[in-house]
Amino acid sequence: MAAKVVIFGVGLIGGSFARALKGAGAAATLVGVGRSPEAMARALELGIIDSVAQSPQHAMRGADLVLIAAPVAQTGAILASILPFLEAGTVITDAGSTKSDVVLAAREALGERVGQFVPGHPIAGRETNGPDAAIADLYVGKKVVLTPLPENTAADVERVAAAWRACGALIHQLSPAEHDKVFAAVSHLPHLLAYALVDDIASKPHAKQLFQYAASGFRDFTRIAGSSPEMWRDISLANRDALIGELDAYLAQLTGLRAMLACADGAALESVYANAQQARRQWIEAIEAAETPPRHGSPE
Amino acid sequence: MAAKVVIFGVGLIGGSFARALKGAGAAATLVGVGRSPEAMARALELGIIDSVAQSPQHAMRGADLVLIAAPVAQTGAILASILPFLEAGTVITDAGSTKSDVVLAAREALGERVGQFVPGHPIAGRETNGPDAAIADLYVGKKVVLTPLPENTAADVERVAAAWRACGALIHQLSPAEHDKVFAAVSHLPHLLAYALVDDIASKPHAKQLFQYAASGFRDFTRIAGSSPEMWRDISLANRDALIGELDAYLAQLTGLRAMLACADGAALESVYANAQQARRQWIEAIEAAETPPRHGSPE
Repeated sequence: MAAKVVIFGVGLIGGSFARALKGAGAAATLVGVGRSPEAMARALELGIIDSVAQSPQHAMRGADLVLIAAPVAQTGAILASILPFLEAGTVITDAGSTKSDVVLAAREALGERVGQFVPGHPIAGRETNGPDAAIADLYVGKKVVLTPLPENTAADVERVAAAWRACGALIHQLSPAEHDKVFAAVSHLPHLLAYALVDDIASKPHAKQLFQYAASGFRDFTRIAGSSPEMWRDISLANRDALIGELDAYLAQLTGLRAMLACADGAALESVYANAQQARRQWIEAIEAAETPPRHGSPE
Repeated sequence: MAAKVVIFGVGLIGGSFARALKGAGAAATLVGVGRSPEAMARALELGIIDSVAQSPQHAMRGADLVLIAAPVAQTGAILASILPFLEAGTVITDAGSTKSDVVLAAREALGERVGQFVPGHPIAGRETNGPDAAIADLYVGKKVVLTPLPENTAADVERVAAAWRACGALIHQLSPAEHDKVFAAVSHLPHLLAYALVDDIASKPHAKQLFQYAASGFRDFTRIAGSSPEMWRDISLANRDALIGELDAYLAQLTGLRAMLACADGAALESVYANAQQARRQWIEAIEAAETPPRHGSPE
Protein backbone atom coordinates (compact mmCIF):
# COMPACT_ATOMS: atom_id res chain seq x y z
CA MET A 1 0.00 0.00 0.00
CA ALA A 2 1.21 3.51 -0.87
CA ALA A 3 1.02 5.78 2.17
CA LYS A 4 0.67 9.05 0.25
CA VAL A 5 -0.55 9.34 -3.33
CA VAL A 6 -0.55 12.70 -5.12
CA ILE A 7 -2.70 13.32 -8.20
CA PHE A 8 -2.21 16.22 -10.58
CA GLY A 9 -5.57 16.73 -12.29
CA VAL A 10 -8.52 15.16 -10.45
CA GLY A 11 -10.89 14.76 -13.41
CA LEU A 12 -12.18 11.57 -15.00
CA ILE A 13 -8.79 9.87 -15.23
CA GLY A 14 -7.12 11.11 -12.03
CA GLY A 15 -10.32 11.06 -10.00
CA SER A 16 -11.19 7.51 -11.03
CA PHE A 17 -7.65 6.41 -10.10
CA ALA A 18 -8.15 8.01 -6.66
CA ARG A 19 -11.57 6.43 -6.13
CA ALA A 20 -10.29 3.00 -7.17
CA LEU A 21 -7.22 3.16 -4.90
CA LYS A 22 -9.37 4.29 -1.98
CA GLY A 23 -11.92 1.55 -2.67
CA ALA A 24 -9.14 -1.05 -2.70
CA GLY A 25 -7.55 0.30 0.47
CA ALA A 26 -4.41 0.88 -1.55
CA ALA A 27 -3.66 4.45 -0.44
CA ALA A 28 -3.64 5.94 3.04
CA THR A 29 -3.79 9.59 1.95
CA LEU A 30 -4.85 11.01 -1.38
CA VAL A 31 -3.75 14.54 -2.19
CA GLY A 32 -5.05 16.49 -5.19
CA VAL A 33 -3.36 19.29 -7.15
CA GLY A 34 -5.01 21.24 -9.96
CA ARG A 35 -5.35 24.52 -11.80
CA SER A 36 -9.05 24.97 -11.10
CA PRO A 37 -9.90 25.73 -7.44
CA GLU A 38 -13.56 24.89 -8.17
CA ALA A 39 -12.68 21.42 -9.51
CA MET A 40 -10.42 20.74 -6.54
CA ALA A 41 -13.10 21.84 -4.08
CA ARG A 42 -15.58 19.60 -5.86
CA ALA A 43 -13.18 16.61 -5.74
CA LEU A 44 -12.78 17.20 -2.00
CA GLU A 45 -16.54 17.52 -1.49
CA LEU A 46 -17.11 14.25 -3.37
CA GLY A 47 -14.59 12.48 -1.15
CA ILE A 48 -12.34 11.61 -4.08
CA ILE A 49 -9.30 13.14 -2.38
CA ASP A 50 -8.51 13.73 1.28
CA SER A 51 -6.91 17.14 0.82
CA VAL A 52 -5.90 19.76 -1.74
CA ALA A 53 -2.24 20.70 -1.85
CA GLN A 54 -1.65 24.45 -1.81
CA SER A 55 1.76 24.18 -3.50
CA PRO A 56 3.97 21.61 -5.26
CA GLN A 57 6.22 21.67 -2.18
CA HIS A 58 3.31 20.78 0.09
CA ALA A 59 2.09 18.13 -2.34
CA MET A 60 5.43 16.36 -2.74
CA ARG A 61 6.43 16.10 0.92
CA GLY A 62 6.61 12.40 1.74
CA ALA A 63 4.83 11.36 -1.47
CA ASP A 64 5.14 7.68 -2.39
CA LEU A 65 3.41 7.85 -5.75
CA VAL A 66 2.52 10.75 -8.04
CA LEU A 67 0.11 10.48 -10.99
CA ILE A 68 0.09 13.26 -13.58
CA ALA A 69 -3.36 13.15 -15.17
CA ALA A 70 -3.25 16.47 -17.03
CA PRO A 71 -3.16 17.22 -20.79
CA VAL A 72 0.10 15.82 -22.22
CA ALA A 73 1.42 19.25 -23.23
CA GLN A 74 1.54 20.22 -19.52
CA THR A 75 3.60 17.23 -18.39
CA GLY A 76 6.98 18.96 -18.75
CA ALA A 77 5.88 22.06 -16.81
CA ILE A 78 4.38 20.00 -14.00
CA LEU A 79 7.54 17.86 -13.71
CA ALA A 80 9.71 21.00 -13.68
CA SER A 81 7.56 22.49 -10.92
CA ILE A 82 7.94 19.47 -8.66
CA LEU A 83 11.62 18.67 -9.31
CA PRO A 84 12.90 20.98 -6.53
CA PHE A 85 10.78 19.04 -4.01
CA LEU A 86 11.25 15.53 -5.43
CA GLU A 87 12.32 13.18 -2.64
CA ALA A 88 14.41 10.07 -3.32
CA GLY A 89 11.60 7.71 -2.34
CA THR A 90 8.96 9.15 -4.67
CA VAL A 91 7.89 7.50 -7.95
CA ILE A 92 6.08 9.54 -10.60
CA THR A 93 3.89 8.22 -13.40
CA ASP A 94 1.51 9.76 -15.91
CA ALA A 95 -1.65 8.97 -17.87
CA GLY A 96 -0.83 10.66 -21.17
CA SER A 97 -2.08 9.28 -24.50
CA THR A 98 1.33 9.75 -26.15
CA LYS A 99 4.61 8.54 -24.74
CA SER A 100 7.64 9.54 -26.86
CA ASP A 101 6.98 13.26 -26.32
CA VAL A 102 6.24 12.72 -22.63
CA VAL A 103 9.54 10.87 -22.21
CA LEU A 104 11.34 13.70 -24.01
CA ALA A 105 9.67 16.29 -21.78
CA ALA A 106 10.47 14.22 -18.68
CA ARG A 107 14.14 13.94 -19.64
CA GLU A 108 14.32 17.69 -20.15
CA ALA A 109 12.47 18.52 -16.94
CA LEU A 110 13.97 15.93 -14.61
CA GLY A 111 17.48 15.46 -16.03
CA GLU A 112 19.38 12.80 -14.10
CA ARG A 113 16.33 12.19 -11.86
CA VAL A 114 14.32 10.86 -14.83
CA GLY A 115 14.69 7.34 -13.43
CA GLN A 116 12.00 8.24 -10.90
CA PHE A 117 9.48 8.72 -13.73
CA VAL A 118 7.69 5.61 -15.06
CA PRO A 119 5.59 6.60 -18.13
CA GLY A 120 2.12 5.05 -18.41
CA HIS A 121 -1.14 5.18 -20.33
CA PRO A 122 -4.43 3.75 -19.02
CA ILE A 123 -6.60 2.63 -21.96
CA ALA A 124 -9.91 3.77 -20.54
CA GLY A 125 -12.07 6.80 -20.90
CA ARG A 126 -15.48 8.25 -21.56
CA GLU A 127 -16.81 11.42 -23.08
CA THR A 128 -17.62 12.95 -19.69
CA ASN A 129 -15.01 14.80 -17.69
CA GLY A 130 -14.31 16.56 -14.39
CA PRO A 131 -14.45 15.21 -10.82
CA ASP A 132 -18.14 14.32 -11.12
CA ALA A 133 -17.30 11.89 -13.92
CA ALA A 134 -14.83 9.92 -11.77
CA ILE A 135 -15.90 6.36 -10.97
CA ALA A 136 -14.20 3.64 -8.95
CA ASP A 137 -14.48 0.92 -11.61
CA LEU A 138 -13.27 2.84 -14.69
CA TYR A 139 -10.15 0.68 -14.91
CA VAL A 140 -11.56 -2.73 -14.02
CA GLY A 141 -10.49 -5.18 -16.73
CA LYS A 142 -8.91 -2.36 -18.76
CA LYS A 143 -5.31 -2.27 -20.00
CA VAL A 144 -2.66 0.07 -18.66
CA VAL A 145 0.39 0.31 -20.90
CA LEU A 146 3.62 1.15 -19.09
CA THR A 147 6.58 2.24 -21.22
CA PRO A 148 9.45 2.00 -18.71
CA LEU A 149 12.75 3.80 -19.25
CA PRO A 150 16.18 2.14 -19.05
CA GLU A 151 16.78 4.31 -15.98
CA ASN A 152 13.75 2.95 -14.06
CA THR A 153 14.38 0.38 -11.32
CA ALA A 154 12.25 -2.77 -11.37
CA ALA A 155 10.95 -1.83 -7.93
CA ASP A 156 9.74 1.58 -9.14
CA VAL A 157 8.01 0.07 -12.18
CA GLU A 158 6.38 -2.46 -9.86
CA ARG A 159 5.13 0.29 -7.53
CA VAL A 160 3.27 1.89 -10.43
CA ALA A 161 2.04 -1.46 -11.76
CA ALA A 162 0.79 -2.48 -8.30
CA ALA A 163 -1.25 0.71 -7.96
CA TRP A 164 -2.94 0.13 -11.33
CA ARG A 165 -3.55 -3.53 -10.51
CA ALA A 166 -5.24 -2.38 -7.30
CA CYS A 167 -7.58 -0.39 -9.58
CA GLY A 168 -8.43 -3.63 -11.41
CA ALA A 169 -6.30 -2.93 -14.49
CA LEU A 170 -4.19 -5.33 -16.54
CA ILE A 171 -0.55 -4.27 -17.01
CA HIS A 172 1.08 -4.30 -20.44
CA GLN A 173 4.53 -3.04 -21.44
CA LEU A 174 5.67 -1.48 -24.71
CA SER A 175 8.51 0.84 -25.66
CA PRO A 176 7.44 4.50 -26.01
CA ALA A 177 7.91 4.29 -29.80
CA GLU A 178 5.90 1.04 -30.08
CA HIS A 179 3.17 2.57 -27.95
CA ASP A 180 2.92 5.65 -30.15
CA LYS A 181 2.84 3.64 -33.37
CA VAL A 182 0.07 1.38 -32.06
CA PHE A 183 -2.10 4.23 -30.78
CA ALA A 184 -1.56 6.34 -33.91
CA ALA A 185 -3.30 3.52 -35.79
CA VAL A 186 -6.11 2.49 -33.44
CA SER A 187 -6.88 5.75 -31.66
CA HIS A 188 -5.26 8.93 -32.98
CA LEU A 189 -6.07 8.34 -36.67
CA PRO A 190 -9.74 7.45 -35.99
CA HIS A 191 -10.11 10.65 -33.97
CA LEU A 192 -8.66 12.71 -36.82
CA LEU A 193 -10.93 10.92 -39.33
CA ALA A 194 -14.05 11.54 -37.26
CA TYR A 195 -13.26 15.22 -36.74
CA ALA A 196 -12.49 15.51 -40.47
CA LEU A 197 -15.84 14.03 -41.52
CA VAL A 198 -17.96 16.21 -39.24
CA ASP A 199 -16.05 19.35 -40.23
CA ASP A 200 -16.33 18.38 -43.91
CA ILE A 201 -20.11 18.01 -43.64
CA ALA A 202 -20.55 21.10 -41.45
CA SER A 203 -18.68 23.17 -44.06
CA LYS A 204 -21.01 22.25 -46.94
CA PRO A 205 -23.68 24.73 -48.05
CA HIS A 206 -26.44 22.16 -47.38
CA ALA A 207 -25.02 21.10 -43.99
CA LYS A 208 -28.34 21.62 -42.23
CA GLN A 209 -30.11 19.21 -44.57
CA LEU A 210 -27.31 16.66 -44.24
CA PHE A 211 -27.38 16.66 -40.43
CA GLN A 212 -31.16 16.32 -40.57
CA TYR A 213 -30.79 12.87 -42.14
CA ALA A 214 -27.73 11.65 -40.23
CA ALA A 215 -28.72 8.65 -38.10
CA SER A 216 -27.31 6.19 -35.56
CA GLY A 217 -24.47 4.93 -37.77
CA PHE A 218 -23.19 8.48 -38.19
CA ARG A 219 -23.65 9.09 -34.48
CA ASP A 220 -21.43 6.16 -33.49
CA PHE A 221 -18.87 6.82 -36.22
CA THR A 222 -18.42 10.42 -35.04
CA ARG A 223 -18.76 9.90 -31.28
CA ILE A 224 -15.02 10.49 -30.77
CA ALA A 225 -15.37 13.85 -32.57
CA GLY A 226 -17.13 14.95 -29.37
CA SER A 227 -13.75 14.79 -27.57
CA SER A 228 -11.79 17.85 -26.43
CA PRO A 229 -10.24 19.70 -29.43
CA GLU A 230 -7.37 21.03 -27.29
CA MET A 231 -6.49 17.58 -25.98
CA TRP A 232 -6.56 16.05 -29.47
CA ARG A 233 -4.62 18.93 -30.99
CA ASP A 234 -1.90 18.19 -28.45
CA ILE A 235 -2.00 14.44 -29.08
CA SER A 236 -1.96 14.94 -32.87
CA LEU A 237 1.09 17.18 -32.65
CA ALA A 238 2.85 15.11 -30.01
CA ASN A 239 2.57 11.98 -32.14
CA ARG A 240 2.56 13.58 -35.56
CA ASP A 241 5.26 11.45 -37.21
CA ALA A 242 3.47 8.19 -36.47
CA LEU A 243 0.10 9.81 -37.21
CA ILE A 244 1.23 11.07 -40.62
CA GLY A 245 2.49 7.56 -41.39
CA GLU A 246 -0.89 6.03 -40.55
CA LEU A 247 -2.75 8.78 -42.39
CA ASP A 248 -0.69 8.17 -45.54
CA ALA A 249 -1.46 4.44 -45.41
CA TYR A 250 -5.15 5.26 -45.01
CA LEU A 251 -5.08 7.77 -47.88
CA ALA A 252 -3.57 5.05 -50.09
CA GLN A 253 -6.35 2.69 -48.99
CA LEU A 254 -9.04 5.27 -49.85
CA THR A 255 -7.41 5.98 -53.21
CA GLY A 256 -7.59 2.25 -53.95
CA LEU A 257 -11.27 2.13 -52.99
CA ARG A 258 -11.95 5.17 -55.16
CA ALA A 259 -10.45 3.34 -58.15
CA MET A 260 -12.67 0.31 -57.43
CA LEU A 261 -15.73 2.58 -57.37
CA ALA A 262 -14.67 4.39 -60.54
CA CYS A 263 -14.49 1.16 -62.53
CA ALA A 264 -17.47 -0.39 -60.68
CA ASP A 265 -15.37 -3.32 -59.45
CA GLY A 266 -17.93 -4.84 -57.11
CA ALA A 267 -15.88 -7.95 -56.38
CA ALA A 268 -12.89 -5.91 -55.19
CA LEU A 269 -15.07 -3.62 -53.06
CA GLU A 270 -16.85 -6.57 -51.50
CA SER A 271 -13.54 -8.22 -50.75
CA VAL A 272 -12.34 -5.17 -48.77
CA TYR A 273 -15.68 -4.84 -46.98
CA ALA A 274 -15.84 -8.56 -46.18
CA ASN A 275 -12.25 -8.64 -44.93
CA ALA A 276 -13.03 -5.70 -42.65
CA GLN A 277 -16.26 -7.23 -41.38
CA GLN A 278 -14.56 -10.53 -40.61
CA ALA A 279 -11.55 -8.92 -38.90
CA ARG A 280 -13.83 -6.78 -36.79
CA ARG A 281 -16.01 -9.78 -35.82
CA GLN A 282 -12.92 -11.74 -34.72
CA TRP A 283 -11.73 -8.74 -32.73
CA ILE A 284 -15.12 -8.32 -30.98
CA GLU A 285 -15.23 -12.06 -30.20
CA ALA A 286 -11.73 -11.88 -28.71
CA ILE A 287 -12.75 -8.89 -26.56
CA GLU A 288 -15.90 -10.62 -25.38
CA ALA A 289 -14.02 -13.81 -24.56
CA ALA A 290 -11.48 -11.77 -22.55
CA GLU A 291 -14.27 -10.00 -20.67
CA THR A 292 -16.14 -13.19 -19.76
CA PRO A 293 -15.14 -14.18 -16.22
CA PRO A 294 -13.50 -17.64 -16.17
CA ARG A 295 -15.55 -20.43 -14.61
CA HIS A 296 -13.99 -21.68 -11.44
CA GLY A 297 -14.39 -25.36 -10.82
CA SER A 298 -14.56 -24.94 -7.06
CA PRO A 299 -16.38 -27.67 -5.13
CA GLU A 300 -19.81 -26.82 -3.73
CA MET B 1 -56.48 0.58 -43.16
CA ALA B 2 -54.93 -1.56 -45.89
CA ALA B 3 -56.83 -4.82 -46.28
CA LYS B 4 -53.92 -6.85 -47.67
CA VAL B 5 -50.26 -5.95 -47.28
CA VAL B 6 -47.54 -7.99 -49.02
CA ILE B 7 -43.93 -7.89 -47.85
CA PHE B 8 -41.00 -9.13 -49.94
CA GLY B 9 -38.23 -9.91 -47.45
CA VAL B 10 -39.45 -10.43 -43.88
CA GLY B 11 -36.20 -9.60 -42.05
CA LEU B 12 -35.43 -6.67 -39.77
CA ILE B 13 -36.89 -3.99 -42.07
CA GLY B 14 -39.82 -5.85 -43.59
CA GLY B 15 -40.62 -7.78 -40.42
CA SER B 16 -40.61 -4.65 -38.26
CA PHE B 17 -42.93 -2.95 -40.76
CA ALA B 18 -45.29 -5.94 -40.48
CA ARG B 19 -45.19 -6.00 -36.68
CA ALA B 20 -45.83 -2.25 -36.48
CA LEU B 21 -48.78 -2.36 -38.93
CA LYS B 22 -50.30 -5.27 -37.05
CA GLY B 23 -49.78 -3.53 -33.71
CA ALA B 24 -51.50 -0.41 -35.05
CA GLY B 25 -54.40 -2.38 -36.52
CA ALA B 26 -53.40 -0.94 -39.90
CA ALA B 27 -53.47 -4.16 -41.95
CA ALA B 28 -56.08 -6.92 -42.07
CA THR B 29 -53.84 -9.53 -43.70
CA LEU B 30 -50.05 -9.64 -43.88
CA VAL B 31 -48.51 -11.87 -46.52
CA GLY B 32 -44.78 -12.62 -46.70
CA VAL B 33 -42.66 -13.55 -49.71
CA GLY B 34 -38.99 -14.51 -49.54
CA ARG B 35 -36.18 -16.59 -50.97
CA SER B 36 -35.46 -18.52 -47.79
CA PRO B 37 -38.16 -21.02 -46.79
CA GLU B 38 -36.62 -21.21 -43.31
CA ALA B 39 -36.88 -17.46 -42.78
CA MET B 40 -40.48 -17.40 -44.03
CA ALA B 41 -41.43 -20.30 -41.74
CA ARG B 42 -39.81 -18.48 -38.83
CA ALA B 43 -41.66 -15.24 -39.64
CA LEU B 44 -44.92 -17.19 -39.67
CA GLU B 45 -44.06 -18.95 -36.42
CA LEU B 46 -43.28 -15.60 -34.77
CA GLY B 47 -46.65 -14.24 -35.87
CA ILE B 48 -45.06 -11.48 -37.94
CA ILE B 49 -47.04 -12.48 -41.04
CA ASP B 50 -50.35 -14.29 -41.43
CA SER B 51 -49.32 -16.40 -44.41
CA VAL B 52 -46.50 -17.15 -46.82
CA ALA B 53 -47.24 -16.65 -50.52
CA GLN B 54 -46.24 -19.62 -52.65
CA SER B 55 -45.93 -17.51 -55.81
CA PRO B 56 -45.92 -13.87 -56.92
CA GLN B 57 -49.35 -14.49 -58.45
CA HIS B 58 -50.73 -15.70 -55.15
CA ALA B 59 -49.06 -12.82 -53.30
CA MET B 60 -50.36 -10.05 -55.54
CA ARG B 61 -54.00 -11.10 -55.73
CA GLY B 62 -56.05 -8.29 -54.17
CA ALA B 63 -52.95 -6.63 -52.63
CA ASP B 64 -53.45 -3.06 -51.45
CA LEU B 65 -49.86 -2.33 -50.51
CA VAL B 66 -46.58 -4.08 -51.34
CA LEU B 67 -43.28 -3.37 -49.55
CA ILE B 68 -40.04 -4.57 -51.15
CA ALA B 69 -37.57 -4.95 -48.29
CA ALA B 70 -34.85 -6.89 -50.13
CA PRO B 71 -31.28 -5.84 -51.11
CA VAL B 72 -31.54 -2.96 -53.63
CA ALA B 73 -29.91 -4.95 -56.42
CA GLN B 74 -32.92 -7.33 -56.38
CA THR B 75 -35.58 -4.63 -56.73
CA GLY B 76 -35.77 -4.79 -60.53
CA ALA B 77 -36.11 -8.59 -60.61
CA ILE B 78 -38.81 -8.58 -57.94
CA LEU B 79 -40.79 -5.88 -59.76
CA ALA B 80 -40.48 -7.77 -63.04
CA SER B 81 -41.75 -10.95 -61.37
CA ILE B 82 -44.88 -9.27 -60.04
CA LEU B 83 -45.75 -7.10 -63.05
CA PRO B 84 -47.87 -9.81 -64.77
CA PHE B 85 -50.05 -9.98 -61.63
CA LEU B 86 -50.11 -6.26 -60.73
CA GLU B 87 -53.70 -5.14 -60.24
CA ALA B 88 -54.80 -1.55 -60.86
CA GLY B 89 -55.56 -0.93 -57.18
CA THR B 90 -52.16 -2.02 -55.82
CA VAL B 91 -49.46 0.42 -54.66
CA ILE B 92 -45.84 -0.76 -54.37
CA THR B 93 -43.09 0.84 -52.30
CA ASP B 94 -39.59 -0.17 -51.24
CA ALA B 95 -37.11 0.29 -48.41
CA GLY B 96 -33.87 0.59 -50.38
CA SER B 97 -30.97 2.76 -49.18
CA THR B 98 -30.45 4.23 -52.67
CA LYS B 99 -33.15 5.72 -54.83
CA SER B 100 -31.89 6.82 -58.29
CA ASP B 101 -30.93 3.26 -59.23
CA VAL B 102 -34.15 1.86 -57.78
CA VAL B 103 -36.19 4.33 -59.82
CA LEU B 104 -34.24 3.35 -62.93
CA ALA B 105 -34.83 -0.34 -62.22
CA ALA B 106 -38.51 0.30 -61.55
CA ARG B 107 -38.94 2.18 -64.84
CA GLU B 108 -37.29 -0.67 -66.71
CA ALA B 109 -39.28 -3.37 -64.95
CA LEU B 110 -42.70 -1.70 -64.77
CA GLY B 111 -42.69 0.49 -67.88
CA GLU B 112 -45.92 2.49 -68.11
CA ARG B 113 -47.14 1.00 -64.81
CA VAL B 114 -44.29 2.75 -62.90
CA GLY B 115 -46.82 5.23 -61.47
CA GLN B 116 -47.89 2.45 -59.09
CA PHE B 117 -44.42 2.42 -57.52
CA VAL B 118 -43.70 5.01 -54.79
CA PRO B 119 -39.98 4.81 -53.84
CA GLY B 120 -39.14 5.06 -50.12
CA HIS B 121 -36.34 4.69 -47.58
CA PRO B 122 -36.93 4.22 -43.85
CA ILE B 123 -34.00 5.71 -41.89
CA ALA B 124 -33.82 3.03 -39.24
CA GLY B 125 -31.78 -0.07 -38.71
CA ARG B 126 -29.65 -2.16 -36.42
CA GLU B 127 -26.80 -4.60 -36.86
CA THR B 128 -29.06 -7.61 -36.30
CA ASN B 129 -31.09 -9.15 -39.10
CA GLY B 130 -33.64 -11.81 -39.96
CA PRO B 131 -37.21 -12.30 -38.70
CA ASP B 132 -36.05 -12.64 -35.09
CA ALA B 133 -34.63 -9.11 -35.22
CA ALA B 134 -37.99 -7.58 -36.21
CA ILE B 135 -39.53 -5.31 -33.57
CA ALA B 136 -42.77 -3.33 -33.59
CA ASP B 137 -41.22 0.00 -32.55
CA LEU B 138 -38.25 0.14 -34.94
CA TYR B 139 -39.75 3.10 -36.80
CA VAL B 140 -41.22 5.08 -33.92
CA GLY B 141 -39.98 8.66 -34.22
CA LYS B 142 -37.75 7.72 -37.17
CA LYS B 143 -37.77 9.38 -40.60
CA VAL B 144 -39.03 7.73 -43.76
CA VAL B 145 -37.93 9.53 -46.92
CA LEU B 146 -40.29 9.13 -49.87
CA THR B 147 -38.99 10.14 -53.30
CA PRO B 148 -42.22 10.22 -55.36
CA LEU B 149 -42.20 10.05 -59.15
CA PRO B 150 -44.03 12.50 -61.42
CA GLU B 151 -46.22 9.55 -62.41
CA ASN B 152 -47.40 8.84 -58.83
CA THR B 153 -50.88 10.01 -57.86
CA ALA B 154 -51.23 11.96 -54.62
CA ALA B 155 -53.55 9.24 -53.31
CA ASP B 156 -50.96 6.50 -53.92
CA VAL B 157 -48.20 8.51 -52.20
CA GLU B 158 -50.56 9.07 -49.29
CA ARG B 159 -51.33 5.35 -49.01
CA VAL B 160 -47.63 4.64 -48.51
CA ALA B 161 -47.16 7.61 -46.16
CA ALA B 162 -50.17 6.56 -44.07
CA ALA B 163 -48.76 3.05 -43.61
CA TRP B 164 -45.42 4.42 -42.39
CA ARG B 165 -47.17 6.93 -40.13
CA ALA B 166 -49.11 4.00 -38.63
CA CYS B 167 -45.66 2.53 -37.78
CA GLY B 168 -44.84 5.73 -35.88
CA ALA B 169 -42.55 7.22 -38.56
CA LEU B 170 -42.22 10.82 -39.72
CA ILE B 171 -42.62 11.34 -43.48
CA HIS B 172 -40.09 13.42 -45.45
CA GLN B 173 -39.90 13.96 -49.21
CA LEU B 174 -36.84 14.45 -51.40
CA SER B 175 -36.12 13.87 -55.08
CA PRO B 176 -34.25 10.61 -55.78
CA ALA B 177 -31.10 12.60 -56.68
CA GLU B 178 -31.30 14.76 -53.53
CA HIS B 179 -31.81 11.64 -51.45
CA ASP B 180 -28.76 9.93 -52.92
CA LYS B 181 -26.54 12.98 -52.45
CA VAL B 182 -27.57 13.36 -48.81
CA PHE B 183 -27.07 9.70 -47.93
CA ALA B 184 -23.78 9.48 -49.81
CA ALA B 185 -22.49 12.06 -47.31
CA VAL B 186 -24.03 10.97 -44.02
CA SER B 187 -24.27 7.20 -44.49
CA HIS B 188 -22.55 5.67 -47.52
CA LEU B 189 -19.23 7.49 -47.10
CA PRO B 190 -18.96 6.71 -43.35
CA HIS B 191 -19.56 3.02 -44.11
CA LEU B 192 -16.80 3.04 -46.73
CA LEU B 193 -14.45 4.86 -44.32
CA ALA B 194 -15.10 2.40 -41.51
CA TYR B 195 -14.57 -0.64 -43.74
CA ALA B 196 -11.41 1.00 -45.11
CA LEU B 197 -9.91 1.57 -41.66
CA VAL B 198 -10.52 -1.95 -40.38
CA ASP B 199 -9.19 -3.51 -43.59
CA ASP B 200 -6.18 -1.17 -43.48
CA ILE B 201 -5.35 -2.26 -39.92
CA ALA B 202 -6.11 -5.94 -40.55
CA SER B 203 -3.68 -5.91 -43.50
CA LYS B 204 -0.69 -4.65 -41.48
CA PRO B 205 1.96 -7.14 -40.37
CA HIS B 206 1.39 -6.21 -36.69
CA ALA B 207 -2.42 -6.33 -36.97
CA LYS B 208 -2.75 -8.63 -33.97
CA GLN B 209 -0.91 -6.19 -31.71
CA LEU B 210 -2.97 -3.27 -33.04
CA PHE B 211 -6.32 -4.96 -32.40
CA GLN B 212 -5.11 -5.88 -28.92
CA TYR B 213 -5.00 -2.19 -27.97
CA ALA B 214 -8.07 -0.99 -29.87
CA ALA B 215 -10.65 0.27 -27.36
CA SER B 216 -14.17 1.69 -27.14
CA GLY B 217 -13.53 4.66 -29.45
CA PHE B 218 -12.37 2.30 -32.19
CA ARG B 219 -15.31 0.02 -31.50
CA ASP B 220 -17.87 2.77 -32.04
CA PHE B 221 -16.04 4.26 -35.02
CA THR B 222 -16.03 0.90 -36.78
CA ARG B 223 -19.44 -0.41 -35.69
CA ILE B 224 -20.86 0.13 -39.18
CA ALA B 225 -18.04 -2.02 -40.61
CA GLY B 226 -19.97 -4.92 -39.04
CA SER B 227 -22.68 -4.44 -41.69
CA SER B 228 -23.30 -6.82 -44.59
CA PRO B 229 -20.52 -6.56 -47.24
CA GLU B 230 -22.89 -7.62 -50.04
CA MET B 231 -25.48 -5.03 -49.10
CA TRP B 232 -22.88 -2.25 -48.91
CA ARG B 233 -21.19 -3.34 -52.11
CA ASP B 234 -24.57 -2.91 -53.83
CA ILE B 235 -25.21 0.46 -52.20
CA SER B 236 -21.70 1.70 -53.04
CA LEU B 237 -22.12 0.75 -56.68
CA ALA B 238 -25.73 1.93 -56.94
CA ASN B 239 -24.77 5.38 -55.66
CA ARG B 240 -21.21 5.52 -56.87
CA ASP B 241 -21.31 8.92 -58.60
CA ALA B 242 -22.49 10.72 -55.46
CA LEU B 243 -20.23 8.56 -53.30
CA ILE B 244 -17.14 9.37 -55.38
CA GLY B 245 -18.02 13.07 -55.08
CA GLU B 246 -18.20 12.86 -51.29
CA LEU B 247 -15.05 10.72 -51.13
CA ASP B 248 -13.14 13.31 -53.18
CA ALA B 249 -14.24 16.10 -50.83
CA TYR B 250 -13.15 14.01 -47.86
CA LEU B 251 -9.78 13.18 -49.46
CA ALA B 252 -9.22 16.92 -49.95
CA GLN B 253 -10.10 17.50 -46.30
CA LEU B 254 -7.62 14.81 -45.17
CA THR B 255 -4.92 16.23 -47.43
CA GLY B 256 -5.44 19.60 -45.76
CA LEU B 257 -5.18 18.05 -42.30
CA ARG B 258 -2.02 16.23 -43.35
CA ALA B 259 -0.46 19.56 -44.35
CA MET B 260 -1.40 21.03 -40.94
CA LEU B 261 0.28 18.08 -39.22
CA ALA B 262 3.36 18.31 -41.42
CA CYS B 263 3.99 21.94 -40.50
CA ALA B 264 2.77 21.44 -36.89
CA ASP B 265 0.04 24.06 -37.29
CA GLY B 266 -1.72 23.45 -33.99
CA ALA B 267 -4.07 26.41 -34.35
CA ALA B 268 -5.39 25.20 -37.71
CA LEU B 269 -5.82 21.63 -36.43
CA GLU B 270 -7.62 22.81 -33.32
CA SER B 271 -9.91 24.97 -35.43
CA VAL B 272 -11.03 21.96 -37.51
CA TYR B 273 -11.43 19.78 -34.42
CA ALA B 274 -13.34 22.49 -32.53
CA ASN B 275 -15.62 23.21 -35.49
CA ALA B 276 -16.41 19.51 -35.73
CA GLN B 277 -17.01 19.14 -31.99
CA GLN B 278 -19.35 22.13 -31.95
CA ALA B 279 -21.27 21.06 -35.06
CA ARG B 280 -21.72 17.58 -33.62
CA ARG B 281 -22.87 18.93 -30.26
CA GLN B 282 -25.49 21.11 -31.96
CA TRP B 283 -26.64 18.15 -34.01
CA ILE B 284 -26.96 15.90 -30.94
CA GLU B 285 -28.85 18.63 -29.08
CA ALA B 286 -31.24 19.00 -32.02
CA ILE B 287 -31.81 15.23 -32.09
CA GLU B 288 -32.43 15.08 -28.37
CA ALA B 289 -34.83 18.01 -28.52
CA ALA B 290 -36.74 16.30 -31.35
CA GLU B 291 -36.89 13.03 -29.39
CA THR B 292 -38.21 14.63 -26.19
CA PRO B 293 -41.99 14.15 -26.17
CA PRO B 294 -43.82 17.52 -26.14
CA ARG B 295 -45.57 18.39 -22.89
CA HIS B 296 -49.32 18.48 -23.34
CA GLY B 297 -51.05 21.09 -21.25
CA SER B 298 -54.20 19.01 -21.01
CA PRO B 299 -56.34 19.63 -17.91
CA GLU B 300 -56.29 16.91 -15.24
